[in-house]
Amino acid sequence: MAESKLEDQLANQARISGDGAPSDEDDDIVDPWNVAGKADTGIDYDKLIKRFGCERISPELIARLEKVTGQTAHPLLRRGMFFSHRDLLHIITRKEQNKPFYLYTGRGPSSRAMHVGHMVPFMFTKWLQDAFDVPLVIQLTDDEKFLWKNISIEESMMLARENAKDIISVGFDMEKTFIFSDFSYIGQCPQFYQNIALVSRSVTFNQARGCFGFGDSDCIGKIHFPSIQAAPCLATSFPHIFKNRKDIPCLIPCAIDQDPYFRMTRDVAPRLGYLKPALMHSTFFPALQGAQSKMSASDENSAIFVTDTAAQIKKKINKFAFSGGKASVEEHREFGGNCDIDVSYQYLRFFCPDDDKLEEIRQNYTSGKMLTGELKAILIAELQKMVADLQLRRAKITEQEVDEFMRPRPLKFNY
Amino acid sequence: MAESKLEDQLANQARISGDGAPSDEDDDIVDPWNVAGKADTGIDYDKLIKRFGCERISPELIARLEKVTGQTAHPLLRRGMFFSHRDLLHIITRKEQNKPFYLYTGRGPSSRAMHVGHMVPFMFTKWLQDAFDVPLVIQLTDDEKFLWKNISIEESMMLARENAKDIISVGFDMEKTFIFSDFSYIGQCPQFYQNIALVSRSVTFNQARGCFGFGDSDCIGKIHFPSIQAAPCLATSFPHIFKNRKDIPCLIPCAIDQDPYFRMTRDVAPRLGYLKPALMHSTFFPALQGAQSKMSASDENSAIFVTDTAAQIKKKINKFAFSGGKASVEEHREFGGNCDIDVSYQYLRFFCPDDDKLEEIRQNYTSGKMLTGELKAILIAELQKMVADLQLRRAKITEQEVDEFMRPRPLKFNY
Repeated sequence: MAESKLEDQLANQARISGDGAPSDEDDDIVDPWNVAGKADTGIDYDKLIKRFGCERISPELIARLEKVTGQTAHPLLRRGMFFSHRDLLHIITRKEQNKPFYLYTGRGPSSRAMHVGHMVPFMFTKWLQDAFDVPLVIQLTDDEKFLWKNISIEESMMLARENAKDIISVGFDMEKTFIFSDFSYIGQCPQFYQNIALVSRSVTFNQARGCFGFGDSDCIGKIHFPSIQAAPCLATSFPHIFKNRKDIPCLIPCAIDQDPYFRMTRDVAPRLGYLKPALMHSTFFPALQGAQSKMSASDENSAIFVTDTAAQIKKKINKFAFSGGKASVEEHREFGGNCDIDVSYQYLRFFCPDDDKLEEIRQNYTSGKMLTGELKAILIAELQKMVADLQLRRAKITEQEVDEFMRPRPLKFNY
Repeated sequence: MAESKLEDQLANQARISGDGAPSDEDDDIVDPWNVAGKADTGIDYDKLIKRFGCERISPELIARLEKVTGQTAHPLLRRGMFFSHRDLLHIITRKEQNKPFYLYTGRGPSSRAMHVGHMVPFMFTKWLQDAFDVPLVIQLTDDEKFLWKNISIEESMMLARENAKDIISVGFDMEKTFIFSDFSYIGQCPQFYQNIALVSRSVTFNQARGCFGFGDSDCIGKIHFPSIQAAPCLATSFPHIFKNRKDIPCLIPCAIDQDPYFRMTRDVAPRLGYLKPALMHSTFFPALQGAQSKMSASDENSAIFVTDTAAQIKKKINKFAFSGGKASVEEHREFGGNCDIDVSYQYLRFFCPDDDKLEEIRQNYTSGKMLTGELKAILIAELQKMVADLQLRRAKITEQEVDEFMRPRPLKFNY
């Protein structure tokens, strides 16, 4: 599948500028449906930045963001998990000038169970929402999952609603957050469909093939879908929030595999009289078995799910988390572990809030002072706490609250 | 344009069954965007029926329809303007068995001014509505016109509303008729978009190319559009009328150039658990200049518009209606006129309600007894009356009535 898509991409000549298709066979495959790195350490992000034509988030940019928000940067930003961007400076400048913008992120509700990796962009988005104090729209692409997977509309909509609860449990402020599912919201807001049509008129099949690798046997729903993920970048898709203002751009925190959608949108938006969306890209969250294997909702041992019990978390980490340690204690003590490929350490980079503690762990594991079991124990405790907190908050979410998050309504901003 | 589309169609191997693409260069071109006959008399409809895989409406079928409705068949049906069908017998049988079905037709609002040819399917549909006493849904594809023409969404929606008034002036029963524009209704009814997605998942790019001749440089909105014209064939697209019943099929009266949409839909519907839509196809309405030239809203002399004054109608018919008469009165008296190519006679076949009068005209014009000027005078009087009636009814339509026709609401039927 990935290969034939790749051929399609290479065969195609008419492309949206900087379409990011792999140019040689050593390149990692990164698109919204396929992520496959060639190296043990996973994706080569420097190469990807170059190929996609985006930019690394520099220490200077982080400093400027900290200054304008008055907040210390989130660990995910400080540690380079959010590592790449497009036009972030433009958004920071707007904040400095007190000009409006909004946050836009989303999720394809492909399964009931979200894993902790799925929560990463939402945890970061929550921090951005607090730091910037701007409206946030969250798209649940239940139509995408219906089009790509063999599931019914009803199931896809049910998954969207269940996922909405997981997302809400991250702690979003209802007064600043609108969560919507495509299957519901397209049928509630004529302006949204109108913006979808504006985008779909502006992208040819050739361009969509270049960006996404669509083939002739793909259904016309898939070929059209990029317009639906693009439209929320146009503020007029949310008249209840932004009235009819076209001059409010968005910042999109997302994993970098979603970049093709917004590369396309950035090409289209100015032609429609809108500002280009800005982006902050995250790295991929590794599977328990390591950066090269794939997390899968159908393989419950490939990830820690937000529904896992403390015992399940402990068992999974101890049993499945790929270790960068040596074969024996003696060898480990002598030569030390490899944090670059150790999944437990990688997970702690995502979830351990304490920079000093993380650095101490890194040094001790690398030197061999800390054994794999000890490292895993630290991660287990961290994840058990985080997941328990999420579960506690999720249990308190009522159906009425979900309804309210998903109801088109004004947010706490004046536009 | 037509030629490159033709090449695309011929090049394509994977097709929906009986896709109706021309197979040799003598074939007429008939698709939703191009109609071009090779002969003086216009399209060869017998050949088209064979190519499209539909059936002629037989005298037996008309008799059965008359019997079940208790009505004499409409002139457009008796005279073969509605000449072809798919599964009409199935609909007649449902009527005999008192099982529910509905009528579905539509218009692409490409211009403010509808001409009398545009009114033909609506006049026939009005008769069907009265004869069958069933619900009618009328789709105004303002999104299609936006995607195909260089117009704004606002203009396209304005045209849809203006056209709705022309359509209402045909005399549709508000209690049995729902008129909707895509740009409005998709944003009002989640089930409609959900059905669009059901269709768009069931049709590949290959199939859409085979049916419609789409090319690589067509925008993804166009490629997706057939799902939007197909979805109203699924009764659940109108929950306010049919609740959630999937077992109510529709009968679509339309010009035969629209057949590709419904050929596709008939392929898809059973896979989605719905009954196939039935169709009644009309011939094309000729331009004033003859069956081979094209009516065009931008050429006001190519057609009689429903906004024309009596004087304009008289002038246009006298000046532009292509004549089947001879070069001189003497020659005409001797050899007679040719009704097959005479546009005035052809128009009278559409609009003269009196069969005996029409036959008398045909005989007298063919024999040379009637001169072209006399024939034109009869048509002028007929059209002046018809257009004046339409204008009178249109002038009385209030904005509130239009709102009501276009408001999703139950119709006068119990499902």
